[in-house]
Amino acid sequence: MRLNETFARPLRQPPSDATTRNHQLLVQGAFVDQLMAGVYTYLPLGLRVLNKISDIIREEMNAIHGEELLLPLLHPSEIWRDDKGSGGWNTVDVLFKVRSRNDKPGDEHTSYALAQSEEEVIAPLFLGRVFSSNYMNHIKPPKDPWNPFVRAPYNIQWKFRDELRAKSGILRGREFLMKDMYSFHETQEDLDEFYEVVKKAYIRTFKKFGLTAKVTEASGGSFSDKISYEFEVLTDAGEDVIYYCDKCDYCVEDEIAEVNPGDKCPRCGEGKLKEAKAAEVGNVFDLGDKYPKAFDRKITRADNKQVYPVMGCYGIGISRAMGVIAEKHNDENGLVWPEAVAPFSVHLVVLREGDKSKTRYEADKLYADLEKAGVEVLYDDRNESAGVKFADADLIGIPNRLTVSRKTLDQQSAELKRRGSSKTKLVPLKDVVKHFQG
Amino acid sequence: MRLNETFARPLRQPPSDATTRNHQLLVQGAFVDQLMAGVYTYLPLGLRVLNKISDIIREEMNAIHGEELLLPLLHPSEIWRDDKGSGGWNTVDVLFKVRSRNDKPGDEHTSYALAQSEEEVIAPLFLGRVFSSNYMNHIKPPKDPWNPFVRAPYNIQWKFRDELRAKSGILRGREFLMKDMYSFHETQEDLDEFYEVVKKAYIRTFKKFGLTAKVTEASGGSFSDKISYEFEVLTDAGEDVIYYCDKCDYCVEDEIAEVNPGDKCPRCGEGKLKEAKAAEVGNVFDLGDKYPKAFDRKITRADNKQVYPVMGCYGIGISRAMGVIAEKHNDENGLVWPEAVAPFSVHLVVLREGDKSKTRYEADKLYADLEKAGVEVLYDDRNESAGVKFADADLIGIPNRLTVSRKTLDQQSAELKRRGSSKTKLVPLKDVVKHFQG
Repeated sequence: MRLNETFARPLRQPPSDATTRNHQLLVQGAFVDQLMAGVYTYLPLGLRVLNKISDIIREEMNAIHGEELLLPLLHPSEIWRDDKGSGGWNTVDVLFKVRSRNDKPGDEHTSYALAQSEEEVIAPLFLGRVFSSNYMNHIKPPKDPWNPFVRAPYNIQWKFRDELRAKSGILRGREFLMKDMYSFHETQEDLDEFYEVVKKAYIRTFKKFGLTAKVTEASGGSFSDKISYEFEVLTDAGEDVIYYCDKCDYCVEDEIAEVNPGDKCPRCGEGKLKEAKAAEVGNVFDLGDKYPKAFDRKITRADNKQVYPVMGCYGIGISRAMGVIAEKHNDENGLVWPEAVAPFSVHLVVLREGDKSKTRYEADKLYADLEKAGVEVLYDDRNESAGVKFADADLIGIPNRLTVSRKTLDQQSAELKRRGSSKTKLVPLKDVVKHFQG
Repeated sequence: MRLNETFARPLRQPPSDATTRNHQLLVQGAFVDQLMAGVYTYLPLGLRVLNKISDIIREEMNAIHGEELLLPLLHPSEIWRDDKGSGGWNTVDVLFKVRSRNDKPGDEHTSYALAQSEEEVIAPLFLGRVFSSNYMNHIKPPKDPWNPFVRAPYNIQWKFRDELRAKSGILRGREFLMKDMYSFHETQEDLDEFYEVVKKAYIRTFKKFGLTAKVTEASGGSFSDKISYEFEVLTDAGEDVIYYCDKCDYCVEDEIAEVNPGDKCPRCGEGKLKEAKAAEVGNVFDLGDKYPKAFDRKITRADNKQVYPVMGCYGIGISRAMGVIAEKHNDENGLVWPEAVAPFSVHLVVLREGDKSKTRYEADKLYADLEKAGVEVLYDDRNESAGVKFADADLIGIPNRLTVSRKTLDQQSAELKRRGSSKTKLVPLKDVVKHFQG
């Protein structure tokens, strides 16, 4: 991608109303543009980060027997009503309601809701097709190849929640990209087993994003009466308050905590509980049989009994994770993306020279060679000063900055600098492609 | 993908309410599942087709200087109102309106609209960042590397339209996946030039889908007073009526036609006009300066004059194209996907044998080898009869069916059959991977 060819270039100033670091940097760096509070356009750079995050999630979910599909955004109100549905129509306060042209003006009735999650769609869909309990064993690969098991469906799609305060940049959106996975099991034990598999996969996933997430006991909210687990990343931009042990991995949300900051840890008995602000990047819910019951979908157990299966649901906030990564990985000059989620691997800078110069020719050639070799390159070919270009490279935060100038060409080289390091080194032009193909 | 591991397997019967071929086959083949009229879940097979279509579009749009971003789904009502926006709030009858929790019950006011297209977002966003006319030359690659040009932004994202009659399977959805591209130009000539470039790219794109699209003169609808061009594919499942010349490429929608079926062609003067039903898979609109004017965004021309640029918009219905492809490529036994958009390249069938048989072992090995070589394989490893498996292979319509049975193994081979052909041939096991990598 050439900066000279995109309208979505870095801005000279952060937006004046931005109070969080992710909001300032993601807008100024031309990753996103705010349409209104909680709703953003993802500009080309931002879309690339979303795609990187999504692909890591796909890899991890497929590895634990997830199976991707795409669930609808527009829901008929029926599946949310008390009589035929989950009963969330009047109780889920973040549910957006949509008028149809058939709804009368002034009428309170609205025909549709917007997906805030997909339990109401996936439970009847999945259980309408899977009747027999021996299809329900999600976790264990079949010991016997003739013993079938069914993968857990997951969905990477936009969700909508009518948040009272949509703020903190892309941390709390009215629309946001989310991975939601669902599993159905014959017994609580089976669910518990898969639940632990997902928890481990989540920790691995967040680690790939460059995030350390604390597994935090929390309320089940409108989804479940049981406790849920939230994956919380410590950050002052977050909206949650958690108490965590300074010795072991005990962590609880303040809302459900029966302990206080300063208390001795109820798990290890050694550490002390500390209080911190945090942002939730994922969650896992044990939903019990709420949704199979609401939609009256039973399965046939091995002993031929008809039972309601138990259901789990597992979310990762993709756009929010992007915001949290930005919040955790930056310095005073801009973003410092971890390699795995960076929009590009190389930020190529050509320093201003006369038209049709040798410098320009060599930089163009390097760009073409790197692209051809499959290296992802952002090429700053604008007619701007070295100062502007280096400042923008720091702002955008791509891991490797590669500069071509008359000075480096005198040594048949390009200058390489890692973002976050102050050291530079010369790489011979002929070795540059090999260096990044590594 | 193993059929034994997915809940989304082919059904024994088409849905009873389906009247069009795409609806019958896509539901029975487990590509989609209908949640309500015009709203579908895309099951794993269907999602793969959507992704194939989207990737072809990306390749073609990038080749004509398109640049991908992601535009919002939830719009503030302001950008649709008369005073500050495009004025479509009360006139665009398919616009979905969304209540916020702050809207009073019974109140007619709603705070948001759902994206039915993105002119209201992209015009102020793009023109807020691109002020100078020399950035506006989308078409011609710069003859001089220092002369910048800006790529045309495009967006592959869901859209929402409150259609009166959402029917014909996925041909007319209340929510549907669409590619929408936008361009801005200093002069009408520049727009006309890019317009022709896009038209040619569209014909190429649809050809890759296995579709022949007629460029059809049509109304500009709520978007423009000028005529637009629709890309129409002849099919009885379509909702449009077109008159086309049987000799040249003249084609017009009945709604704006000043000719009648049977008339002599007004373009070539030789052919006769025929009437046909057709489905629109794409369109291009010359929007004039409507949106730049509505949002009061001018650009500075080369002569330093401030002018409203002219704007073009270019759509392709991705989910609809999937339906039209299904409508055009099927026979009495099921779907016959063109290679480029098929969900998989190979449909591997293992014929029923005792547990842990050599047949099963060899088929499993072939599946693993093909996957490892990057060949996309759907593996029917279910415990079903040959009759069921072959019928489902025909229904799903993957281009190559590869069967492993005791009989084929006696000859160290697998049996290959192309979908749509009745001929079979034996391919030695050791050559199968090479055959499909070719």
